[in-house]
Amino acid sequence: MIRIGVDLGGSQLRAARVGADHAVAAVHREPVGEPRDVDAIVARVALAIEQLADIPEAGAPIFDDEPAEVIAVGVGIAAMLRGADGFVVVSPHLRWRDVAFGDKLAARLGPRYRTRITNDANAVVWGEVVGGAARGCSDVLGVYVGTGIGAGVVCGGALIAGASHCAGELGHVKVRWDDGAEPCRCGGRGCVEAYLGGAYLERRMRRELAVKGSAAAKSYAIELAGGAELVAASHVDAAAAAGDAWALGLWTELAPLLAVALGNALAVLNSERLVLGGGVLARCPTLVDLVVTTLHLAAPAACVERLSIVMAELGDDAGLVGAAALAAQR
Amino acid sequence: MIRIGVDLGGSQLRAARVGADHAVAAVHREPVGEPRDVDAIVARVALAIEQLADIPEAGAPIFDDEPAEVIAVGVGIAAMLRGADGFVVVSPHLRWRDVAFGDKLAARLGPRYRTRITNDANAVVWGEVVGGAARGCSDVLGVYVGTGIGAGVVCGGALIAGASHCAGELGHVKVRWDDGAEPCRCGGRGCVEAYLGGAYLERRMRRELAVKGSAAAKSYAIELAGGAELVAASHVDAAAAAGDAWALGLWTELAPLLAVALGNALAVLNSERLVLGGGVLARCPTLVDLVVTTLHLAAPAACVERLSIVMAELGDDAGLVGAAALAAQR
Repeated sequence: MIRIGVDLGGSQLRAARVGADHAVAAVHREPVGEPRDVDAIVARVALAIEQLADIPEAGAPIFDDEPAEVIAVGVGIAAMLRGADGFVVVSPHLRWRDVAFGDKLAARLGPRYRTRITNDANAVVWGEVVGGAARGCSDVLGVYVGTGIGAGVVCGGALIAGASHCAGELGHVKVRWDDGAEPCRCGGRGCVEAYLGGAYLERRMRRELAVKGSAAAKSYAIELAGGAELVAASHVDAAAAAGDAWALGLWTELAPLLAVALGNALAVLNSERLVLGGGVLARCPTLVDLVVTTLHLAAPAACVERLSIVMAELGDDAGLVGAAALAAQR
Repeated sequence: MIRIGVDLGGSQLRAARVGADHAVAAVHREPVGEPRDVDAIVARVALAIEQLADIPEAGAPIFDDEPAEVIAVGVGIAAMLRGADGFVVVSPHLRWRDVAFGDKLAARLGPRYRTRITNDANAVVWGEVVGGAARGCSDVLGVYVGTGIGAGVVCGGALIAGASHCAGELGHVKVRWDDGAEPCRCGGRGCVEAYLGGAYLERRMRRELAVKGSAAAKSYAIELAGGAELVAASHVDAAAAAGDAWALGLWTELAPLLAVALGNALAVLNSERLVLGGGVLARCPTLVDLVVTTLHLAAPAACVERLSIVMAELGDDAGLVGAAALAAQR
């Protein structure tokens, strides 16, 4: 069976052939750019898929005496979905709302293709389960802290979709509900994403660094970055490791919030493996250490006694691998 | 197939024959009493099971020409379990720790019986799924607030066990993690059970009612109960409904804590049905109303748009029904 994985984010469209062994080949990359209305994107995604489908399989030519062979196409998309048909309720990244993306793509590709649309974080987690950091695990929580926070849940060997295909919204778990809780782009307040999501973290760092004479303005992170305006989460992380007061203060305020969100999910799920990834966590080992330590204080001991915590392995390929595997599975 | 359900709690041992239609018959009840060491309890549970097994089935006698017919026995137990064999890590109710209950019961019953041990809350939730308030639902969160808080999770039609068979520990989700967070019997602090679990609630009510001249001491709940020492959660609930200041203050402090615990679990699980039960919630409709209202503010809209919230239907039978159905399933 030919398997194609697609990862449609807010900035990049990636697609690749994926082997039955979950190896990625012939990776295609293009910026999403403009226009990004659904018809324009569907046309470009379909073109990338068709080009990948036309690459002959080693030892197994595609269109010889079995022209009706189905091509499994999995798409991981940075969107909140509804139902099994890839209907996009909202994608801030693509600026879509109530768009029948899955139906449009399936119609454009035609009957040779069997498409399956998945939330991108779910696809990424499934990729780590079939071929990465959670290989062989039946009960997995995967959490990605990048610009936002995405997650995927595997229970008893199956990816959990939920009643309306939006399971795994761990980014919008509430970690504060007092009057001072931070507003979140989801419309809620106090979501863990509004504290640790890269976009929010960035804004907060800028704000604190701009206060003259503050601990932030004297932070070692500025020296590490080569200027206050260049400070990124990775610099705060290195500064915290070096004992910088502002960086440590920020991290010790934020780490417990993520730890509680994770620990509370693990109390309910009793996962065997927690996979952590995404740009913020990948570049901030000190923050990860703090989160992991606090997590063990926050979660019931019996629920985490069999838990192992690992960093994601597959990087950008995870979404391609997971989406293709899900499409092949159905 | 003969199915027997057992519900082994801290105060009562219940057992019954359960039909393939999930109807309960020949219910046996006895107090757990003393001694409650594992061997004594195993002997009594086995006796109850054997007596139930010997009741001939209508139209299908047990031991005619198929003496080797397997009898499916499901036991829901008020304990934290490890693994699939019914090993009890801890049961405060039975005062057990590290006890091979499942193995001992299976050995005592012999090969005619196929036993399956489940956490009692999981059994109760599964009972509501196969024959009660969540009949026909694939994605269910069931939460019971009684003396403690227990929960069970069903995803994609299957009861979630978790890596070490302790999924659903929603009672030990943290809702506070500041210095003032209440200690919980689990050894943690700030668990939702330490605020809304009946045992904790009771202690808090007693403490506040004892403060002379306080709002509590003037509460309408005392009149409803017929004396301060008789005030139960149900009286606080009725007083809150009548606008009593102390009762309303208590409920509006506690309801958001349970609502956040539920909403955060639903953000991850995207369940289609939330089943609420247990002595505290069953007797406190005003508290339930407050929790449900706050829940809709706490949970991401997309994760609860397909959610229906209902009260449990099967009462004390749910655990028998669920445990028997799980045993028959394997």
